[in-house]
Amino acid sequence: MATSPDSAVDAPTRRERANALRALAMDAVQQANSGHPGMPMGMADIAEVLWTVFLCHNPRNPGWPNRDRFVLSNGHGSMLLYSLLHLSGYPLPMDELRRFRQLGSRTPGHPEYDPEIGVETTTGPLGQGLANAVGMALAEKTLAATFNRPGWPVVDHYTYVFLGDGCLMEGISHEVCSLAGTLQLGKLICLYDDNGISIDGDVAGWFGDDTPARFAAYGWHVVPDVDGHDPDAVHAAIEAARAADRPSLICCKTVIGKGAPNKQGSESTHGAPLGAEEIAAARETLGWSWGPFDVPEDIRQGWDATAAGAASEAEWQELMAGYTAEHPELAAELQRRLAGELPGDWASFADAALAAVAADPAKEATRKSSLRALNAFAPALPELFGGSADLTGSNLTLHSGSVVLSEGEPAGNYLHFGVREFGMIAILNGVALHGGYIPYGGTFLVFADYARNALRLASLMGIRQIAVLTHDSIGLGEDGPTHQPVEHVASLQLMPNMRVWRPCDAYETAVAWRDAIERRDGPTSLVLTRQGVPAQTRDAQQRADVRRGAYVLRGAGRPDLILIASGSEVALAAAAAQLLEADGHAIRVVSMPCMKLFLEQSADYREAVLPAAVEQRLAVEAGSPHLWHRFVGPAGRIVGLDRFGESAPAAELFEHFGFTPEKVAVVAREVLTAT
Amino acid sequence: MATSPDSAVDAPTRRERANALRALAMDAVQQANSGHPGMPMGMADIAEVLWTVFLCHNPRNPGWPNRDRFVLSNGHGSMLLYSLLHLSGYPLPMDELRRFRQLGSRTPGHPEYDPEIGVETTTGPLGQGLANAVGMALAEKTLAATFNRPGWPVVDHYTYVFLGDGCLMEGISHEVCSLAGTLQLGKLICLYDDNGISIDGDVAGWFGDDTPARFAAYGWHVVPDVDGHDPDAVHAAIEAARAADRPSLICCKTVIGKGAPNKQGSESTHGAPLGAEEIAAARETLGWSWGPFDVPEDIRQGWDATAAGAASEAEWQELMAGYTAEHPELAAELQRRLAGELPGDWASFADAALAAVAADPAKEATRKSSLRALNAFAPALPELFGGSADLTGSNLTLHSGSVVLSEGEPAGNYLHFGVREFGMIAILNGVALHGGYIPYGGTFLVFADYARNALRLASLMGIRQIAVLTHDSIGLGEDGPTHQPVEHVASLQLMPNMRVWRPCDAYETAVAWRDAIERRDGPTSLVLTRQGVPAQTRDAQQRADVRRGAYVLRGAGRPDLILIASGSEVALAAAAAQLLEADGHAIRVVSMPCMKLFLEQSADYREAVLPAAVEQRLAVEAGSPHLWHRFVGPAGRIVGLDRFGESAPAAELFEHFGFTPEKVAVVAREVLTAT
Repeated sequence: MATSPDSAVDAPTRRERANALRALAMDAVQQANSGHPGMPMGMADIAEVLWTVFLCHNPRNPGWPNRDRFVLSNGHGSMLLYSLLHLSGYPLPMDELRRFRQLGSRTPGHPEYDPEIGVETTTGPLGQGLANAVGMALAEKTLAATFNRPGWPVVDHYTYVFLGDGCLMEGISHEVCSLAGTLQLGKLICLYDDNGISIDGDVAGWFGDDTPARFAAYGWHVVPDVDGHDPDAVHAAIEAARAADRPSLICCKTVIGKGAPNKQGSESTHGAPLGAEEIAAARETLGWSWGPFDVPEDIRQGWDATAAGAASEAEWQELMAGYTAEHPELAAELQRRLAGELPGDWASFADAALAAVAADPAKEATRKSSLRALNAFAPALPELFGGSADLTGSNLTLHSGSVVLSEGEPAGNYLHFGVREFGMIAILNGVALHGGYIPYGGTFLVFADYARNALRLASLMGIRQIAVLTHDSIGLGEDGPTHQPVEHVASLQLMPNMRVWRPCDAYETAVAWRDAIERRDGPTSLVLTRQGVPAQTRDAQQRADVRRGAYVLRGAGRPDLILIASGSEVALAAAAAQLLEADGHAIRVVSMPCMKLFLEQSADYREAVLPAAVEQRLAVEAGSPHLWHRFVGPAGRIVGLDRFGESAPAAELFEHFGFTPEKVAVVAREVLTAT
Repeated sequence: MATSPDSAVDAPTRRERANALRALAMDAVQQANSGHPGMPMGMADIAEVLWTVFLCHNPRNPGWPNRDRFVLSNGHGSMLLYSLLHLSGYPLPMDELRRFRQLGSRTPGHPEYDPEIGVETTTGPLGQGLANAVGMALAEKTLAATFNRPGWPVVDHYTYVFLGDGCLMEGISHEVCSLAGTLQLGKLICLYDDNGISIDGDVAGWFGDDTPARFAAYGWHVVPDVDGHDPDAVHAAIEAARAADRPSLICCKTVIGKGAPNKQGSESTHGAPLGAEEIAAARETLGWSWGPFDVPEDIRQGWDATAAGAASEAEWQELMAGYTAEHPELAAELQRRLAGELPGDWASFADAALAAVAADPAKEATRKSSLRALNAFAPALPELFGGSADLTGSNLTLHSGSVVLSEGEPAGNYLHFGVREFGMIAILNGVALHGGYIPYGGTFLVFADYARNALRLASLMGIRQIAVLTHDSIGLGEDGPTHQPVEHVASLQLMPNMRVWRPCDAYETAVAWRDAIERRDGPTSLVLTRQGVPAQTRDAQQRADVRRGAYVLRGAGRPDLILIASGSEVALAAAAAQLLEADGHAIRVVSMPCMKLFLEQSADYREAVLPAAVEQRLAVEAGSPHLWHRFVGPAGRIVGLDRFGESAPAAELFEHFGFTPEKVAVVAREVLTAT
């Protein structure tokens, strides 16, 4: 399922094609007066070989599921990608290249996931594109093992990556390349732009790795010392990589800014326009006589991949038709999963599962409730693909239908990611982007820090990905402040488009899981306790309202005071309410498992839950108090934690830091008696 | 400056000493009913060799500056460290070991920086101890190059690290070990606990690296295949490492939980008590007949390092006395810097520098103001040690007195960290912990995400470390949403003990730098603009009040409305105020460059700045609005950004997202006319 090598093209033609990329990058950066010409000019020859000879894709249908994936991990070289997409025939007109880096264009400064025009992922934060690609290659391999049948390789494509020194310096490159080596992802092919330059200058002063040896140590197939400006050498290296059964790193020696006669080879070409004079000189050097944004028709034709792409897809469609005839159920299931649709009977299945949880109240840690929810939902969702960053038994992410991925179980649905939080989340982003899976991954909430920018990119891309973040407060206990989250729930809340759930019991946990699974426009963080929490009682309306993010859990009528809490502090608030009710006060307890969803509700609903007239409010959360101010107002108070925790048994810590019904009641009485 | 190898000790004695560590770990974990016995039991033999033969330290003076540093990067094995400290003679009594993991003990679940008892850094979040150690070795090497004179090696010690599979899987291990290799930190010696087990089980399924080859690729001296239970082999490996002029990795094959006959070699020993029965069996296996927490006197004597330590320090003190006689000024300066004291004339020097900034108002980016402040302060502060994660020209961290560290400039004060944000901050934590330097490091604010947990550990440890975080909003412009911070200022604010400054002009920037330099109990984040901002006018009182975190910048008397802003939005607020004043309103503008400092001020001061009676308030920040609710209250409004940005020129983005004087004035008028 790949375009055949086109060895008929002569060297001058190849050079001209590559120069079209160089010229477009120079011109667009110059026009925007901002951007990065150095990388596109340096990698143009490599791109020409990969895209005109090997890359199997259909520009007229960027969503063709069996296309090769191409990831520009050194995303600052975005003009290279835009030029490639434009010239290959994707719906990205030259006008958009002229509008490079302008408001509302399809050509932002760094590539942003845009499946309609063939941008496979958002890159720029270095190393993460590479990690996404590992996820894509993993998804391809696992999906192939699940769905392909003898004679029917319906899932069968490569994942190609461009990357630079920056990606290789970033720690995440180690995490994901080590794992890719262990997993032997043979269809992952990385082309390393070894230009010896990063922003601060010649990398020799701060990057002395023997990179080929490093990747060999990961078990990769390495092609060292390829001249990145010699198409034949690049061609041979890619062919060798495709033949290897291990992931490949092709180390291409290149000259950054190649073609700019006075600046090439220097960091001055990296992140700024070359200037009109140098561009003119480069045109001369390259023998490129055409004007800005002008690519002559014969060169365009050499780039045009629409015919070959249509043929490739047609060939696959034929294959798919045969597969469908022979394996109709498998084919339908594959199509459903690739479309990201839940099963047709999902709603009733999920309703029944929730009803079962509601009918079986138990005191348990919400991480256990999470496993219960997984066990309940997973039988209907073979697309769930899970894992943990070496905390499987703590995160409780291995459900009863989990099959650990291994050489003997290539179609498994669970991966031991090792101690690699950032790599895990960024790989899961790639799995989600590939399609066919709903990925989830577990770690301790405190180590969401390690993965934070990958969670951000999932939010920015708006992809379905679920982080299972357990041990969510000082309730973690003896492991101490290095492992106890304080600011983490709030800091995840701050991330645009990240939905954070901190459920208070098994029922809310199951609802949170269901919401995360059904959500299609962004990621979810499930924030779960280590310690047991009692089940709350709810009527049908309350059960329905969980998904509104906050609801009145307890206390009818106009309250004297509203207690607002989330997660493990809901039971605490309810216990405090009992004490206060014994004093004769009318107390409302609001459970707020998902702050953001609540803020998206109608003003009427919000007013019904938190009536403006009741200024006596107290929020309780064993974590950062800062986001609660908006809910309690100036007359209210917060029982929170605005310092680091301590190492001690959890019960002692809750007592020590004021999280007991009695202490909460004391503060509540202060609110009730003030003014 | 090292204890001589003690080859006279026989093997059974060595084994007994190591078994003391094993027994204490088993017993303390059992008593706490929580903890990690596996690693201490596995590394006991290695620890015995390192601590009784090689480690040069003085338990009676844990602060002796020339001690060898010992870092337990696999911090979950904390009982190993506590046992070593206790047995060596540090002021850590057995009672504290009995109180392992209890509230208020000196023996928390993971080691927490505690210089009085010899805990050199806080570890547990994997990989970061190793990074701290790289920082310590870097500080040692650089300080030695600065202060040592022929015949006077007054700075001359090793940095030893214990680390495990988890540390090596984490990406940060790549960042810092790559850099340590390039920098040839020959006195960094790492002992790898290669037990083949992590929490999820046998690491073969997820960690297939050829680790010796990987480290050889970094330019390290590697000793592979050492039997970690053979003291002679460990001894020889450490000797070889000390002789190497490159950093060393000693790969020790060990058995996790060694000595527990039924559980050793399995992940079941990793993170849970062995249980009374297995402990009894282990005592039998080990031939350890003593009761819990009982170590016989002869074994204690073998461990006691107080005499040797006192002798080592006395030898060094003698050396130091000679050095002081010959180089009195250097010696005084070294002592000052090791004590972390600023120069005696610092206050007047800094006052004059601030006055100069005040006298020279200019419209400039605060990142440029930051460079100006650095240029002003650095001549008085040779202890400043800076760097950038490959954004030197953007972060503007290279001041005019900077000397880039290199082979030819071993006493440099500036390091090109490469594209390694997490590694940089964690290394700088180690530099701060070592002493002799005030470290600072630059990156884009958005990439503080990558380094987040290292910033957290600096906050938890309370160490002086300065993050220079530039390009602080959509004002970054064309690079787009991957590079534009939105939630970052707020999420750093949430971190306990992290002081965040977002200054509005050159003067506030200089004050922020001064505060960061003078602060001794925690780190500071300096959040700076890419784009130019005008200088504000201030009288003497206002200049003095900057350091109170917020102050009235503009508008005397009782205002109709208070505009509150930070950073680049202060000028915007002032411009909006002018528009509103033209309407006839009395407007107060409050600049709040440091929210946390303001919240620490007296209630009177806070009331004077933000009078409760004035409920008409509007906060303006080109970032997450969420923390401003507490300052504007329910009647107030916020002009913030609660979504991701866009790729476009900065001015267009500010207009697009509502950050213009006119648009702010529109919202302000709504506040003024409401109720």
